[in-house]
Amino acid sequence: MNTQTPSDSASAAARIARLREWMAGEGIDACLIPSADPHLSEYLPAYWQGRQWLSGFHGSVGTLVVAAGFAGVWVDSRYWEQAAKELAGSGVELVKMGPGQQSPLEWLAEQVSENGVIAVDGAVMAVASARVLTEKAALRGISLRVDLDPLSAIWADRPALPDHRVYQHLAPQATSSRAEKLALLRQAISDKGADWHFIATLDDLAWLFNLRGSDVSYNPVFLGFALVGLERVQLFVAANKLDAELRQILADDGVELCDYTEAARALAELPLGSRLLVDPARVTCGLLGQVVTGVKLVEGLNPTTLFKSRKSTAELEQVRQTMEHDGAALCEFFAWFEQALGREPVSELTVDLHLTQARARRPGFVSLSFATIAAFNANGAMPHYRATEQSHSVIEGDGLLLIDSGGQYLSGTTDITRMVPIGTPGHEQKLDCTRVLKGMIALSRARFPRGILSPLLDAIARAPLWADNVDYGHGTGHGVGYFLNVHEGPQVIAYAAAATPQTAMQPGMITSIEPGTYRPGQWGVRIENLVINREAGRSEFGEYLSFETLTLCPIDTRCLEVSLLTAEERNWLDDYHDQVRERLSPLLHGAGLAWLLARTEALSV
Amino acid sequence: MNTQTPSDSASAAARIARLREWMAGEGIDACLIPSADPHLSEYLPAYWQGRQWLSGFHGSVGTLVVAAGFAGVWVDSRYWEQAAKELAGSGVELVKMGPGQQSPLEWLAEQVSENGVIAVDGAVMAVASARVLTEKAALRGISLRVDLDPLSAIWADRPALPDHRVYQHLAPQATSSRAEKLALLRQAISDKGADWHFIATLDDLAWLFNLRGSDVSYNPVFLGFALVGLERVQLFVAANKLDAELRQILADDGVELCDYTEAARALAELPLGSRLLVDPARVTCGLLGQVVTGVKLVEGLNPTTLFKSRKSTAELEQVRQTMEHDGAALCEFFAWFEQALGREPVSELTVDLHLTQARARRPGFVSLSFATIAAFNANGAMPHYRATEQSHSVIEGDGLLLIDSGGQYLSGTTDITRMVPIGTPGHEQKLDCTRVLKGMIALSRARFPRGILSPLLDAIARAPLWADNVDYGHGTGHGVGYFLNVHEGPQVIAYAAAATPQTAMQPGMITSIEPGTYRPGQWGVRIENLVINREAGRSEFGEYLSFETLTLCPIDTRCLEVSLLTAEERNWLDDYHDQVRERLSPLLHGAGLAWLLARTEALSV
Repeated sequence: MNTQTPSDSASAAARIARLREWMAGEGIDACLIPSADPHLSEYLPAYWQGRQWLSGFHGSVGTLVVAAGFAGVWVDSRYWEQAAKELAGSGVELVKMGPGQQSPLEWLAEQVSENGVIAVDGAVMAVASARVLTEKAALRGISLRVDLDPLSAIWADRPALPDHRVYQHLAPQATSSRAEKLALLRQAISDKGADWHFIATLDDLAWLFNLRGSDVSYNPVFLGFALVGLERVQLFVAANKLDAELRQILADDGVELCDYTEAARALAELPLGSRLLVDPARVTCGLLGQVVTGVKLVEGLNPTTLFKSRKSTAELEQVRQTMEHDGAALCEFFAWFEQALGREPVSELTVDLHLTQARARRPGFVSLSFATIAAFNANGAMPHYRATEQSHSVIEGDGLLLIDSGGQYLSGTTDITRMVPIGTPGHEQKLDCTRVLKGMIALSRARFPRGILSPLLDAIARAPLWADNVDYGHGTGHGVGYFLNVHEGPQVIAYAAAATPQTAMQPGMITSIEPGTYRPGQWGVRIENLVINREAGRSEFGEYLSFETLTLCPIDTRCLEVSLLTAEERNWLDDYHDQVRERLSPLLHGAGLAWLLARTEALSV
Repeated sequence: MNTQTPSDSASAAARIARLREWMAGEGIDACLIPSADPHLSEYLPAYWQGRQWLSGFHGSVGTLVVAAGFAGVWVDSRYWEQAAKELAGSGVELVKMGPGQQSPLEWLAEQVSENGVIAVDGAVMAVASARVLTEKAALRGISLRVDLDPLSAIWADRPALPDHRVYQHLAPQATSSRAEKLALLRQAISDKGADWHFIATLDDLAWLFNLRGSDVSYNPVFLGFALVGLERVQLFVAANKLDAELRQILADDGVELCDYTEAARALAELPLGSRLLVDPARVTCGLLGQVVTGVKLVEGLNPTTLFKSRKSTAELEQVRQTMEHDGAALCEFFAWFEQALGREPVSELTVDLHLTQARARRPGFVSLSFATIAAFNANGAMPHYRATEQSHSVIEGDGLLLIDSGGQYLSGTTDITRMVPIGTPGHEQKLDCTRVLKGMIALSRARFPRGILSPLLDAIARAPLWADNVDYGHGTGHGVGYFLNVHEGPQVIAYAAAATPQTAMQPGMITSIEPGTYRPGQWGVRIENLVINREAGRSEFGEYLSFETLTLCPIDTRCLEVSLLTAEERNWLDDYHDQVRERLSPLLHGAGLAWLLARTEALSV
């Protein structure tokens, strides 16, 4: 994902020193450099990867705080190992996020001296975060400046903004027209008592206009904003990204095209008395600060976020077919992998290469949906490990290979994790795989009331791990888009997430189920399927949902202690493998088919 | 619980009319009458049962709203059946609380006309609730008056305040001294940066001072307040409630006794610059409104609420013995019940009488911990049913008898629900019992990380019910006191509860596990045990807790479809019955012992 050459610890130290000089000149006591851009995206174009450039920590999430006597990056447990390596010697501390640890905002509010000044670039700070920080900081007389961009001041060779072309997502893969989506959105704006709505989030934008791009690695989105009124709609995107034909098509649909840089001005020019629907978590304070006082803010979740989370019947039919092709690609890869192992050198990088090639042969393939995680033994203990030319493992000997990978197809987004036995996995490794599978099966089999807040389901997946005092530091499930982001809300199956009303489970949502176990320095286990929320009937107690498993690929039983599975769990696994065999066989032949048939055999009783 | 004679619907209508007259005179558009008192207790002395008096709905929880053209009581699902009966013909609407239904505060904020006035007695309104209402109402220019008591204005024969005596909770049942508890509390006040702390909640007060009373039915508490400083401590309680000896003992411990009515003045006289620790959910806006502007509020959970939730090793030892006696009392009752049934008339009231007598014979018995729920067939579908002389069922024919009961002993508080087979329970009834037992076993067997927020565990108990599209409208578990309230926080196993940090599971907490199923007009099922959070080891993933089941009484397998239990569930039940037999046998003889032995036989395979 990261497009820079890794900076070494010495250059990080020099850059932090330069930032401190600039801070002193501006009278700034502390700088906050979040992993964020004006679209509050998860994956950032290089232009906004200032935290990586400054600190030398290249994980995709992390928050840098620099004060005169302190510099530290707040990092979640997925990245602790990587961050410890990358920050060594830089003078930048690794602050491990976890229960009881101060957040960066709390640190700033408590550690900056009274009446001090904190700076953060308002162009990349969510309104909601800015409010929290302003409030906390005000208790000690500290003020927040959001009008400065610390990076521009010191980053001489800052990369340019991406300028990839924007293209249409068309039928049959797009199952609803731009006009239909706009009508739906306008109804929602109106229902909320608003007459305008501003969209800064790229997945919302791509979904609404049936447009796609490639400005952000792995996510088929393009940089832009939209201002949607009940009568007019403006799309802010760099002029050179759309060809004349597409410009005309959009014009015919009533979409006014404006330059990317014009969004701030359009917000500033909203007529007095307007009511603007905005999501404080999905728009920056820099942009929202442009809105004049006479415009009333109506705050709420972007309606498109909920719309796009609920896939239509037609979309789900496309996704099911896509899952068959994705699973078939995996079978072809595994067939190659098993014959290659021991006959030619196979490394984590080779795995990535061959797996990507297998996917690329499938119809509608566009790109990977995230950087493949192929992690052998100890590397698997880093949940977001990525092999590089400089640092990767050769796959040999005994143990476990974790492969977490996914594709972007015109007809859907995939994300799957499987454990691969190498030589003879150890007993403890098999125990970990078995427990994780139990967790995945427990949640996959669950029914639950429609509308239940998704974080509340997490305990069902974790209970089989907790039973042995085992847990994992990440969430159990994230929403997944339809040829869109591999991580999308609003639902999230994670007990650490706030169980807000917008996380309610609704029919048509696609979510991952991916429990894990990580033994630092030894190995890591994760097994992941995608599931749909499917209607499961109505009773006197209300409406119910259950999960339909979408992902189709054998779960390698050579990694399991099958004797520890209950009868129900064995049945689930046999039924799953029956379905995988039935649906993937027609798409495979030769070695791939043979591998599929061998790996989907029923468990012996 | 209710100490009034039920008012009929005609008198409710007349009282509401009188309230509306008063409202018109005062310029009030709507009145809010919560189920609350100055101590924000669950069970209210008759003096504060104004909502019952006005509306005629006698359930223990409910919120009345009266406007010119509307009167309604918001009622949770436990009381829907009862409320529908009691409100019929009164002109007061039953508003069923549930997902999507406006709360009373939302109703007021949206339905009262712009710039209108809402009145609620500030003496019984939590600061936190008043803030929410004020904020919501302000959006439409509505103001909130908290300086009027609508009840006093119209309730001529309002009952007097209770004046029962206060007594000491002594060793060996009290396992920590008043001085030790005060020292612990002062440390917590100081740790939070405060120098004073105000306590309005009666369980906190009783725990802190090792004092008990009987001002509130079933809860061994007394009306009072406390103002605790780092140097002095004032206890506000009506002078006639303490005898001279106890007054001297408290004086010797440095406790200054003041009259109950003096609390407001003491708050008003807090010195400027003081820092007062208060819990906005546990003190009324009427009282906190007395504090002058120069006093800084430090907001947080009452430290005593967490202290008393974590029972000491010595307390738990007392509770285990108490559970043995409580279980033995139940066995004696069931032995009587089974021989009496069919030989003499047995009604729900007889059950209550005999069960209470059996408990009263046990050492240290003080009172019931709540009104016994003995509910046959359709009555069981009302989770908080209470048989009365006017309305109760005779137990005969076939079906299920639900008995939810508990005792207050000097050495602990009990709360247990068991299902009793009458004649031959039907297949559907047995299915409901079996599913509910599965839920109880699933959660009873769970392990979980120390500190997990208790609402997040709820899905583990519900999953076996959800599997068949079945659910229940109440929480799965509430905290339980030590010779204190049968419902106490801060933990609560209920997915509808907010998962705030204060709900974290900590060692020593006692919680109920009580899933259920309610079929209105047919039958109801609930099975309930109390459990302790017990330390269950530490691993590289952190500290873990598991539940130790405290409650000791057979679970009648004649209500079950045993074939539907898994091997693990059958083992759990057999192990539980082994333990029940072993621990209760020494306390029983004759028919009670014979009943115990018969009902704890292992399941046949």
